[in-house]
Amino acid sequence: MFKHTRALQFNAKPDRPDPLMARKLQEALGGQWGEMTGMMSYLSQGWASTGDEKYKDILLDTGTEEIAHVEMISTMIAYLLEDTPIYEQEEMIKKDPSLAKVMGGTDPEHGLVHGLTAGLTNPNGAAWNTGYVTSSGNLLADMRFNVTSGNLLADMRFNVTRESQARVQVSRLYHMTRDEGVRDMLKFLLARETQHQLQFIKAQEELEERYGVVVPGNMNDIQHSEYSHVIMNFSDGEGSRAFENQIAKDGQMFTYQENPEAMGEVPKTKPASSELHNDQG
Amino acid sequence: MFKHTRALQFNAKPDRPDPLMARKLQEALGGQWGEMTGMMSYLSQGWASTGDEKYKDILLDTGTEEIAHVEMISTMIAYLLEDTPIYEQEEMIKKDPSLAKVMGGTDPEHGLVHGLTAGLTNPNGAAWNTGYVTSSGNLLADMRFNVTSGNLLADMRFNVTRESQARVQVSRLYHMTRDEGVRDMLKFLLARETQHQLQFIKAQEELEERYGVVVPGNMNDIQHSEYSHVIMNFSDGEGSRAFENQIAKDGQMFTYQENPEAMGEVPKTKPASSELHNDQG
Amino acid sequence: MFKHTRALQFNAKPDRPDPLMARKLQEALGGQWGEMTGMMSYLSQGWASTGDEKYKDILLDTGTEEIAHVEMISTMIAYLLEDTPIYEQEEMIKKDPSLAKVMGGTDPEHGLVHGLTAGLTNPNGAAWNTGYVTSSGNLLADMRFNVTSGNLLADMRFNVTRESQARVQVSRLYHMTRDEGVRDMLKFLLARETQHQLQFIKAQEELEERYGVVVPGNMNDIQHSEYSHVIMNFSDGEGSRAFENQIAKDGQMFTYQENPEAMGEVPKTKPASSELHNDQG
Amino acid sequence: MFKHTRALQFNAKPDRPDPLMARKLQEALGGQWGEMTGMMSYLSQGWASTGDEKYKDILLDTGTEEIAHVEMISTMIAYLLEDTPIYEQEEMIKKDPSLAKVMGGTDPEHGLVHGLTAGLTNPNGAAWNTGYVTSSGNLLADMRFNVTSGNLLADMRFNVTRESQARVQVSRLYHMTRDEGVRDMLKFLLARETQHQLQFIKAQEELEERYGVVVPGNMNDIQHSEYSHVIMNFSDGEGSRAFENQIAKDGQMFTYQENPEAMGEVPKTKPASSELHNDQG
Amino acid sequence: MFKHTRALQFNAKPDRPDPLMARKLQEALGGQWGEMTGMMSYLSQGWASTGDEKYKDILLDTGTEEIAHVEMISTMIAYLLEDTPIYEQEEMIKKDPSLAKVMGGTDPEHGLVHGLTAGLTNPNGAAWNTGYVTSSGNLLADMRFNVTSGNLLADMRFNVTRESQARVQVSRLYHMTRDEGVRDMLKFLLARETQHQLQFIKAQEELEERYGVVVPGNMNDIQHSEYSHVIMNFSDGEGSRAFENQIAKDGQMFTYQENPEAMGEVPKTKPASSELHNDQG
Amino acid sequence: MFKHTRALQFNAKPDRPDPLMARKLQEALGGQWGEMTGMMSYLSQGWASTGDEKYKDILLDTGTEEIAHVEMISTMIAYLLEDTPIYEQEEMIKKDPSLAKVMGGTDPEHGLVHGLTAGLTNPNGAAWNTGYVTSSGNLLADMRFNVTSGNLLADMRFNVTRESQARVQVSRLYHMTRDEGVRDMLKFLLARETQHQLQFIKAQEELEERYGVVVPGNMNDIQHSEYSHVIMNFSDGEGSRAFENQIAKDGQMFTYQENPEAMGEVPKTKPASSELHNDQG
Repeated sequence: MFKHTRALQFNAKPDRPDPLMARKLQEALGGQWGEMTGMMSYLSQGWASTGDEKYKDILLDTGTEEIAHVEMISTMIAYLLEDTPIYEQEEMIKKDPSLAKVMGGTDPEHGLVHGLTAGLTNPNGAAWNTGYVTSSGNLLADMRFNVTSGNLLADMRFNVTRESQARVQVSRLYHMTRDEGVRDMLKFLLARETQHQLQFIKAQEELEERYGVVVPGNMNDIQHSEYSHVIMNFSDGEGSRAFENQIAKDGQMFTYQENPEAMGEVPKTKPASSELHNDQG
Repeated sequence: MFKHTRALQFNAKPDRPDPLMARKLQEALGGQWGEMTGMMSYLSQGWASTGDEKYKDILLDTGTEEIAHVEMISTMIAYLLEDTPIYEQEEMIKKDPSLAKVMGGTDPEHGLVHGLTAGLTNPNGAAWNTGYVTSSGNLLADMRFNVTSGNLLADMRFNVTRESQARVQVSRLYHMTRDEGVRDMLKFLLARETQHQLQFIKAQEELEERYGVVVPGNMNDIQHSEYSHVIMNFSDGEGSRAFENQIAKDGQMFTYQENPEAMGEVPKTKPASSELHNDQG
Repeated sequence: MFKHTRALQFNAKPDRPDPLMARKLQEALGGQWGEMTGMMSYLSQGWASTGDEKYKDILLDTGTEEIAHVEMISTMIAYLLEDTPIYEQEEMIKKDPSLAKVMGGTDPEHGLVHGLTAGLTNPNGAAWNTGYVTSSGNLLADMRFNVTSGNLLADMRFNVTRESQARVQVSRLYHMTRDEGVRDMLKFLLARETQHQLQFIKAQEELEERYGVVVPGNMNDIQHSEYSHVIMNFSDGEGSRAFENQIAKDGQMFTYQENPEAMGEVPKTKPASSELHNDQG
Repeated sequence: MFKHTRALQFNAKPDRPDPLMARKLQEALGGQWGEMTGMMSYLSQGWASTGDEKYKDILLDTGTEEIAHVEMISTMIAYLLEDTPIYEQEEMIKKDPSLAKVMGGTDPEHGLVHGLTAGLTNPNGAAWNTGYVTSSGNLLADMRFNVTSGNLLADMRFNVTRESQARVQVSRLYHMTRDEGVRDMLKFLLARETQHQLQFIKAQEELEERYGVVVPGNMNDIQHSEYSHVIMNFSDGEGSRAFENQIAKDGQMFTYQENPEAMGEVPKTKPASSELHNDQG
Repeated sequence: MFKHTRALQFNAKPDRPDPLMARKLQEALGGQWGEMTGMMSYLSQGWASTGDEKYKDILLDTGTEEIAHVEMISTMIAYLLEDTPIYEQEEMIKKDPSLAKVMGGTDPEHGLVHGLTAGLTNPNGAAWNTGYVTSSGNLLADMRFNVTSGNLLADMRFNVTRESQARVQVSRLYHMTRDEGVRDMLKFLLARETQHQLQFIKAQEELEERYGVVVPGNMNDIQHSEYSHVIMNFSDGEGSRAFENQIAKDGQMFTYQENPEAMGEVPKTKPASSELHNDQG
Repeated sequence: MFKHTRALQFNAKPDRPDPLMARKLQEALGGQWGEMTGMMSYLSQGWASTGDEKYKDILLDTGTEEIAHVEMISTMIAYLLEDTPIYEQEEMIKKDPSLAKVMGGTDPEHGLVHGLTAGLTNPNGAAWNTGYVTSSGNLLADMRFNVTSGNLLADMRFNVTRESQARVQVSRLYHMTRDEGVRDMLKFLLARETQHQLQFIKAQEELEERYGVVVPGNMNDIQHSEYSHVIMNFSDGEGSRAFENQIAKDGQMFTYQENPEAMGEVPKTKPASSELHNDQG
């Protein structure tokens, strides 16, 4: 269960309106790697977690914080859209041609659909969807197959990725504006994404130590291991040879196959048999 | 440019048809973390890469291999669908009630739309889409902002995640069947996903060493660093306190904030001004 | 900003597992009218609201409650999936044919992707997306055009609809199970959806009284009013004539047009002019 | 079955081309609340209706009219796109910088994909989809559960919402242009949306009178009624207290809970049991 | 403008309910190649057409007919869903195990969302969307570039494809049932799809005769014609050599390139320049 | 299995950067009819094909070539985005107002998400998805129903359509730029699309000769043939009468029905029976 405080977690007020920046900030709200993705992934993973309380709790803490980030960015976007001219302004444009840039570059749905507030989309207006979310479940203690360590570690790796991609985008957004109010909020998000990267990396390393670095840990005897450390060269670039004879994180050595051959057959699926249908009238 | 060999990279032939398993294998083909996602992410990243030849090449090698995996799984699905009764079989059902299970559980579009071959969807028939793909670009040598190291490392982390999530799902698929032909192919995929995890982890570690562990590396002086190593406790679980005073991978120590307070204001966006529109007729 | 309590708002524990019911409950979680839609619509509307504190607050209260409902239903689904056989069970099926029903009717992604926990989809596995959400903005005090009353009232009407559609579906779900644990949770949701319907109806009526029943209120002098109270009969059914001479909620009388005629021209858009392009080489 | 008249229902011809306005009008055609949504919702509801002829007929009348609105807006968009320069016009831009605005703000797919005619998308090019449509079925006479009144009333509420959201957007579109031809069509749509709001409100009120205001009407004895009239205060705003002791539309009084407590348990789903799988080889 | 007749274009009544067949028929309603796709493609093309009245009219005639087909299939699905047990029926299942098949194979949203009527989706519940529709515009008389013939012919080819794919699926549906009522409707659809294939083929042939077989007709002098009749052999199959020296429909002869070489350079995009950003603070 | 050559199939280098043209080229990459659609349709059809080696091979050859086209266009887009100013450039804009056009018209995700390289979307940022792909299966030798000829021919017709729509769009793109580097690549694509149209037309004609022109060929005795050659006039246009008495490609004559009547009943689906549910508690 949740409770809401009206005050924001951190400042989210620009020095002045800027509808183009509002559009760009939609990426941090409703893009593939935006705050909605963090919020729903961490909450879902936290609710699904049945294992170590430590990991369950940090997932729920962080997921709950992300709702506040969704709130902050939504607020910032609304401030940035204040005074945006959504109605026709022919005479004003003649006086100030920079309005033309705004007319061409603003998201028309900001005014038309959302009344100059944030939508839950990316800057191109694509609806955020849960195809961006990852939560692979509660099989934590499935000791027989130990699929476990796999899925929790796999989700932690997703979370590190989410925070990394998001911090790259927030960095790019930072350089796209000089508004000190916008930058103030972005500096806070940068810091929190540092923390979230580091905490999930910490969890990831603990899990790697416990279950092994390859996810999931218990399938290594089952796989066709003769292909598990081979760099296969399917293109004419020479760069990947640099990995040859290097030691992989699991302690084994990479080999290099210059010219990997097809080992399977040419497939021969048969046409659908007509005999099957001989009771049709 | 690409060339195609008709023989498969590895065996992809089941011992016998099984349309329910065919449906499940669609996850490895057209699901969020399936082979289509690997193929288009690595190829896109490889084509976008302008930096170290080593990384560009391993991306293109691996992306090219993934097309072969798309081919293998498509072939396997077509074999598994052979002889599936898509037409009404009332009398046959009476003789063999297990056909009823097939009737209820088979993807109806396998027969109706794809003529008993694979579709490019997940097991629930959701179309694969490029919202699953990640490729964050060629800013590799952007020395001033060094956004660089960030985006290449962020993409490598995505790739490790892709291979981890995929290997968890392939492990689950392995346990969902006893067909030795299907298992043979899955054992090969497990091995290749081991290799791909390890090679991307290797690249990731090299990049972390060069640019720092927090992505992107050059924003640490800009961020509000007083919040960059603080575990904030937004839920009443006590588990996340376990991280307190631990050393993060960047060498600094995590602190713990039991009761994080709202530091921002209550937002007061103003209603859209009517003055703006005073030239309307 | 938000805080999370680990205890659920209300009981969400079934008497026994039932993976088919788990699948059906996905509608209440990630369907068009499910709790995700309520949560993100009310929070977005609340954050966008600049007007009467009363409405802003009830939107934020209710949006925050809906996060707890997302949590409850996610938990219930995980409980219902406990012990679901996702791996092949040929011998068990022979002993208990009802497992065949489960095999055919269960969402394969529950096991394969989510490790027997909830996904953020509907029962057919379609990803929830923000195309289901409505929030039309902060133009509340736009006195000149008074678009205002319109959009807040329009959003309240959406909210009443959301709670009505959701309560119809929860009622249907109630009759689809006899599990007293599941029913206990549904009885609570039914009650809350009563409250939410009634509170939004209350707000809606107040706004209708203030601004008029037709949304938005200030365009009535602009519209072509000769067509604003005419039932036009475009089909050969006779039922709609029953509205003739009845008094509409704005106090005017409906008229009936038996055979509405086309009043516009036959369109004659011209082909794209080739003159425009005469500087092409 | 349908017949088509080439003449439009009403005028749909602008005074002059305007490709930016063409893009904005896409909202009224292929947006979430555009005419496609009205058309397919009302037709689907009408075809599904088994009950009172009066409601079935007005749904089919209105759905049929909406096809004509889709036609009118498609025609208007094609007129507005006439003469749009989709080919490179460097020298023309030098003479008339306003072309630059057009180049930046026009939907590139209008020229490239649709040859300067309408697409079935919103202004950001998102494909219209049936996730926007609502039609909840024919259970009208299901007397035992009386789910009935619920779903028809719920659909009528959706229809009132559709017409309200659409009229807000058409009002905004009206103020975004001064073209008298465009405005003429919008004035007609405003009038029809008045009629459609009023007719669906009429139907809604009749149904509320017959079955009660809370949808569906027959679950009130089943729900946990102690929570059905309680305003729960989950945020620190004080506004929602204004509803306290007010009379809800069903005649009961709202109470106010200042600090709602979690009434459920902390969930303890168990990890997936490994015993289940002990027949794996 | 449109008018609606309540009587259906043709019979659409099954001999008995069959909810699995109802699910499969969704393909013909809301699948990629279903009637919605025909309806919206032909209407859009007809409204966009500015050229030969003959083609404009047949597009509008056929598009209007397709609305009636949407109506017929929606009706058939509702009939097929009559009496479907959507509520729990434990005791009935014990008496009739075939109900178990229905429970597993029925679309759960048919009951839960649509109250036992049709949804606008495919059998896997994927929402129909306008990404399936094609309408390429009104450049018919663009004589200078003659892009014209191209786009009208390209659309006619799409229409022939639509009717062909749809008729394949309707044929498959025909064999999936023995219900004479369902088959009666399908026999009618098969006939109409014959007519629609033949009429669009007729139009296609006339346009090919007028503008040439390669679309669009006027770019043949611009293209790099040395590559315009070469079968390039990118795979190790030998089958495509069979086209060698055959005469293409434009009268020229195909040649065969056994081993096509890469003619382009290795791409060398440069990293984003940092100089660009030297005004950042 | 596939191998990759780093050199491109053909030149893909512009004379100078142009981020607006980069955006437009996204249509040829990730639009409905772009190269991704060709690639995945032909490969899927080739893998599914069980029949004539000739057709299987040309599908795989062409599908493999299309991967190279995806590569070329991705490369071209990255070149066109070189030096695009994604960071704020207020002073530079003052010096060169044409930058304002770029700011408004560029895809913001090109810089923000993809670091100035291609995304797998259309110019409006809509994710490419497999709902654009067609592959109808391997029923080639299904002699009894001969559904066969149908689906292979239907897919060939799709392929001809794909190449036609794509060539129309590439022609439009050609006229949207004067950059000789871009045009050089487009001239090559135009030539290849000529070849692909002609080869698929050849295959289509052979299949028509073998199985008949109406797809699928073996349902003609089953359909209600009295409706299979009738032009039905559902609109008041007179154009379609021009087909009357013309000979269709199957040798039969079209007739014309001026005023087609509804032949079906008014549907009377019954409300869901309440008796079914009488075991509810």
